[in-house]
Amino acid sequence: MTTPIRPDTDAALECLKERMIRHVFLVACGGSLSIMLPGKYFLDRFCDLPSDALNADEFVYRSPRRLGQDALVVLCSQTGTTRETVRAAEHARAAGALVVAMSLDTASPLAAAADAVLRYEAPYTTGVPIDPAESNYAVLYLFLAGLIAHLGGSGPLPALQASLPQLGRVIEAAKARLGPQLEPYAARLKDKRAIYTLASGPVYGAAYSYAICVLMEMQWYASQAIHADEFFHGPFEVVDRDTAAIVMIGLDETRPLAERARDFLMRFGTPDTVLVLDAKTLDLAGLHPDVAPYLVPLIFFDVLWSFAYRLADLRGQPMLSGRRYMKKIADY
Amino acid sequence: MTTPIRPDTDAALECLKERMIRHVFLVACGGSLSIMLPGKYFLDRFCDLPSDALNADEFVYRSPRRLGQDALVVLCSQTGTTRETVRAAEHARAAGALVVAMSLDTASPLAAAADAVLRYEAPYTTGVPIDPAESNYAVLYLFLAGLIAHLGGSGPLPALQASLPQLGRVIEAAKARLGPQLEPYAARLKDKRAIYTLASGPVYGAAYSYAICVLMEMQWYASQAIHADEFFHGPFEVVDRDTAAIVMIGLDETRPLAERARDFLMRFGTPDTVLVLDAKTLDLAGLHPDVAPYLVPLIFFDVLWSFAYRLADLRGQPMLSGRRYMKKIADY
Repeated sequence: MTTPIRPDTDAALECLKERMIRHVFLVACGGSLSIMLPGKYFLDRFCDLPSDALNADEFVYRSPRRLGQDALVVLCSQTGTTRETVRAAEHARAAGALVVAMSLDTASPLAAAADAVLRYEAPYTTGVPIDPAESNYAVLYLFLAGLIAHLGGSGPLPALQASLPQLGRVIEAAKARLGPQLEPYAARLKDKRAIYTLASGPVYGAAYSYAICVLMEMQWYASQAIHADEFFHGPFEVVDRDTAAIVMIGLDETRPLAERARDFLMRFGTPDTVLVLDAKTLDLAGLHPDVAPYLVPLIFFDVLWSFAYRLADLRGQPMLSGRRYMKKIADY
Repeated sequence: MTTPIRPDTDAALECLKERMIRHVFLVACGGSLSIMLPGKYFLDRFCDLPSDALNADEFVYRSPRRLGQDALVVLCSQTGTTRETVRAAEHARAAGALVVAMSLDTASPLAAAADAVLRYEAPYTTGVPIDPAESNYAVLYLFLAGLIAHLGGSGPLPALQASLPQLGRVIEAAKARLGPQLEPYAARLKDKRAIYTLASGPVYGAAYSYAICVLMEMQWYASQAIHADEFFHGPFEVVDRDTAAIVMIGLDETRPLAERARDFLMRFGTPDTVLVLDAKTLDLAGLHPDVAPYLVPLIFFDVLWSFAYRLADLRGQPMLSGRRYMKKIADY
């Protein structure tokens, strides 16, 4: 019935055949939650199924009424050991929901708590390059596109399948183009106390993970991912000529929101410390226009990941050893 | 069919009779969006209807597929002139949705764009005390409880109607109790560069509005509303003995999340600059336990609003004149 995608995706979609799904919960913590935000945007745009993206503990304790046998719960944890996320999978299972887990490790506790497991790859902890067609974003979108295809209608699956093999090349080209442009910002931002990230639509997830998992977690900046329109309803009052910000402008429907934030920051901040990433300046050849907007956050995050290493060098605070609590103190 | 609530609420609920509603969109910007977050929690817990809380421009440009004739869109803007929110009402109307607007001004552009208008009161701009039973939170919950009653089932409406008349007294008691406890923190926090707020569940909205509409907008602190569990997935790495934070601990199901964040901050930060508001320490007599958790964010926000004036005094930066862009520069 559905087009073959990947063996694990196909197996997960096979589970849908016994179910009538009427709600999707996208559940994770931190960086893994950040990909669920564009996942929800993807569902909002391409299908009629309601969904929520929730932190794993919030999901467990809130326990929405719509969680039941007709719910699909998609969870993600890199190691598959994040306790809140494992608990959320168990909670969803106990409620009778169909549980699909994403993890690097198909033998992890999260995988064990799920009905089906989707394996992905990540370069961030090992440093070994991966094919981004195997990344968390790609694997999530493939599954959601498969779900949309399963529900009937055309949907973005063919466009996504045609685009993903090109993604590695596109990201390398983006790094090559933007790397030199970003370089002077490293020296200008390194001693700032606060660096804000701004984005909208599916790009907001990348702004969120960069603020909390990189700038805060690894480099101890004060930070916040500010939604590009919410910016004008409070946060923009902090802006002065010293403000450091990273504005991520995507290709999706909400692009004008990020452009407006950029224009404000260029006028009342200073271009020297307002770093703008605009997907329109990139060579995205090979990415189908229907799905390119959803791949932009991954492209931006990869470019900014390299930039974080430049900040780390200049600050003398290595990226991973920047952690003082996570996995170093019992219970955290 | 439905219990009489208030004339405008009853009229708005009357519109539902001609419709089969299958999705609720809660739409606003900034401080008005902050009340929509617990509004969604309220729906998630008490009924089976799916919902989304979205920034107004994000809502317009994202334009989710579920927006149509069977959608209910509830919007809020204090003045009723917030352009994004007016645009969102018009967008929803054009999509055939039922549009309910909340505003101080029933003759505002937002009201004109809606099928029904709910009037509320606010003390923050005029300084004139109001009965909190007429506040944005109260009016939103009453309408949502009315919606839940309309859908059948018992629901929280009677508990809410019994509790709201007590809310003014409860808030005054909370201010009297917490005011003196907060006082020493004003001097300790006044010169901090960053003050974080932390909360979970329905209290997160208050943490959000306090961070962006008070600490950032009016006092130019670096700030961020950190979800109490997301805190452990990145943000907590910034914590040291200098960290300033406000932890809001509610009475809802997610309370353990905020307690965990408090415990971490007390251990690795310092109690001198970590301000804890715990709803368990308050006299909430008269508030029904089913709805008290939803009124806690309003109580906390009112207490912290007074505290902001103390910070403003010590910093020599008056609250409202702290704005340099909002309504002072054309287009903002």
